[in-house]
Amino acid sequence: MGKITIVGLGLIGTSIGLGLKKANLKDIEIVGTDKDSEVSSRASKMGAIDKASRDLIPAIQDTNMVILATPVMAMKELMEIIGPHLEEGATVTDTGSTKSSVMAWAEEYLPSSVSFVGGHPMAGKEKSGPDAAEATLFNNTPYCIIPGKQADPSAVKSVAGLAEILGAKPMFMDAPEHDSFVAAISHLPMILSIALVTSTAKSPQWSEMARLASTGYRDITRLASGDPEMNRDICLTNADFLVRWVDEIIKELYEFRNNIKEGRESLLSTFVQAWEARARWLAGVTREEAKVELPTVGESFAGMLMGDRLARKVKEITSRDKKDPTKYYKR
Amino acid sequence: MGKITIVGLGLIGTSIGLGLKKANLKDIEIVGTDKDSEVSSRASKMGAIDKASRDLIPAIQDTNMVILATPVMAMKELMEIIGPHLEEGATVTDTGSTKSSVMAWAEEYLPSSVSFVGGHPMAGKEKSGPDAAEATLFNNTPYCIIPGKQADPSAVKSVAGLAEILGAKPMFMDAPEHDSFVAAISHLPMILSIALVTSTAKSPQWSEMARLASTGYRDITRLASGDPEMNRDICLTNADFLVRWVDEIIKELYEFRNNIKEGRESLLSTFVQAWEARARWLAGVTREEAKVELPTVGESFAGMLMGDRLARKVKEITSRDKKDPTKYYKR
Repeated sequence: MGKITIVGLGLIGTSIGLGLKKANLKDIEIVGTDKDSEVSSRASKMGAIDKASRDLIPAIQDTNMVILATPVMAMKELMEIIGPHLEEGATVTDTGSTKSSVMAWAEEYLPSSVSFVGGHPMAGKEKSGPDAAEATLFNNTPYCIIPGKQADPSAVKSVAGLAEILGAKPMFMDAPEHDSFVAAISHLPMILSIALVTSTAKSPQWSEMARLASTGYRDITRLASGDPEMNRDICLTNADFLVRWVDEIIKELYEFRNNIKEGRESLLSTFVQAWEARARWLAGVTREEAKVELPTVGESFAGMLMGDRLARKVKEITSRDKKDPTKYYKR
Repeated sequence: MGKITIVGLGLIGTSIGLGLKKANLKDIEIVGTDKDSEVSSRASKMGAIDKASRDLIPAIQDTNMVILATPVMAMKELMEIIGPHLEEGATVTDTGSTKSSVMAWAEEYLPSSVSFVGGHPMAGKEKSGPDAAEATLFNNTPYCIIPGKQADPSAVKSVAGLAEILGAKPMFMDAPEHDSFVAAISHLPMILSIALVTSTAKSPQWSEMARLASTGYRDITRLASGDPEMNRDICLTNADFLVRWVDEIIKELYEFRNNIKEGRESLLSTFVQAWEARARWLAGVTREEAKVELPTVGESFAGMLMGDRLARKVKEITSRDKKDPTKYYKR
C-alpha cells in the first residue's frame, strides 16, 4: 500500500486530491493535513482525501510522496519541521508559485535521503479554499517541473506522472528560467490587476465610477482577488525578476502615455501588433502540443479565433499602414 | 409604422438589433446599414434587422430614431453626411465609447430640428463583428445616457427606453463626467491589457514564456483583442483624462516596484486592501439597484462572494496587522 500526503488543503491541494481520487489509483492512500482542521474536514467531506490528519508529523511519515501545497513563505519552516521525519527514498514536491527560494530551502532543510522535485501547476481561479477545488482544475494546463540537484530520476518521473494524472502538461525547466518566465506572464499581471484596483478605488469619484465598471474591469482586476498572503509571498521570493518586469511595463506605459498625449499615429500599429500577438498566442495554446511553435498569424487562424471580420479589418489596416500612413488618420 | 435605423452592424449594432427584435415591438421597422454590405447581410440573416439598406441616406430618412454604432472617429463624418437628411423631430443617439467629442460634433453638424442623446452601453466582449452579437449582451449592464443641450425630453426618454428594452440600466450623466469615469474603469484597463501584451511579446524569451501563460494572462490581456481602430479612436477622443490615469497608474506601479524591491511589509496590507475593495465592488454590482451605495465590507458579503475561508483569512491578516505588524513577517 502506497501513501501520498498533501500538506495544505486550499484550492490547489484539495484539487490535487480530487484529481488523484478521480484517477482511482490502486493501493494508494491519500492523506491530507492543514493547519486549519476545519479545512481538512471540508476536503475530507468532499472526497479529496482518504484520511485527514490533524498532526503534521504522523501525516508525512511512511509516505512515498509529500506534496506541499501551501503559500511559498510557509514552505521554509515546513521543510525544516518535516525533514527529519521523512521516509528514506521519499519524493517531496511542492506547488509554489516561485521556485528559486523553494529549491534552496529544500537543499538546506531536506535530508539527502529524499528527492525534492519542485512543481508549479499553472492553474488557479478567483475563489480559493477547498470549496472552490475541482478535479479538472489542471486539465490541459502547463505544469512546471524543476528537479532538485540530488533528485533521483524515478522521483522526477513520479512528479511528471502526478502532473499527467491531473491532466496537466509537464514542462521541465530550471528555477531561474521558471521564475523569470512566471514573473512576466503571471506575477506582472497580478501586480497590474492590484495596481488598477488600488488606483481606481482610492479616487474620490470611485463610488460613482464603480457603478459603471463592467466586464472589462472585472476581468482585468480578477487577480486582485487572489489570496493576499500568497501574492505577498510571490513578491518576496521573486523580487528581482518581478522588479525588472515592472520597470519594463512602466517604460512601455510611459511611451503609450506620450503617444496618446500627442495623438500619434503609431498607436494604431501598436494596437494592431498587440492584437496579432495575442491572436498568435491563443492559436499556440489551443494547439495541444507539449512544445508548440507559435505560428505566423494567418488569416485562417486569426479568423477562426477572433472572428473573420476583425481579422480582415486588421489585415486591411496593416496593409493601409504600409501604403500611406496618413490617409486614414485625421484628428 | 415607426422606424429605427442602426448605422454600423458590428457587435454592438447587431446586438441592439437582436435585442429590439426580441422585444417584439409593435409597428416598428428596424433598418440596418453598414459600409460593408457583407456585414449587413450577415446581420439581416441573423434576424437583427427587418431590412438591410445598402445606402446610408435612404436608411436614415423618415426614421424616428437613428442609432450610430460605429467607432467614435467615424461619427463626425457620419453626422455631417446624415444631418441634412434627418426627419424633423427625429432622435439621434450613438454607442460611442467617449462622449465629449461626439456631443460637440452633434452640436456642430446635426440640425436643431433633431434631438441628440449620447449613449454608451457598458458591454462588450473579446470577439467583434455581427457574428459575435447577442440579444442579451446588455443584460444588467450600465447604459450611460448623455442628453444633448437641445435634446427634447421625449427624446431622452426614448433613449432611456431603448436601454431598458435591451435589459440595461440607464444612468444619466454629462460628457466630462462620463469621459473621466470611463478613462479609469474602461480605457485604462484597455491600455494595461495592450501594454502587457506589447512588453511580454517582444521579449526574446516570449516563445518559451508563451507556453506557460495561462488563464491569468488570458484574462488580463483580453482587452488587447478588442478592435484596434476602436481603441485608437478612444485614445484620440479621451486623451486628457486617459493620460491623467496612465500617469496615476505609473506612479502606483513605481511605488509597488519599490516596495517589492525592498521587501516591504506594506505589500500585504496593500494587497488586502485591494482584495477588500474588489470584494466591495463585486458586492455592489451584484445588487440590482440603479444607484447602489457600496457597502462596507462585511464578512457575510465577502464570504458569499469570495469563499468563507479567504474572507476569514483576510480578516485575520487585517487584525494581526493592527496588533503586531512584524510578527508574521520574516524574510
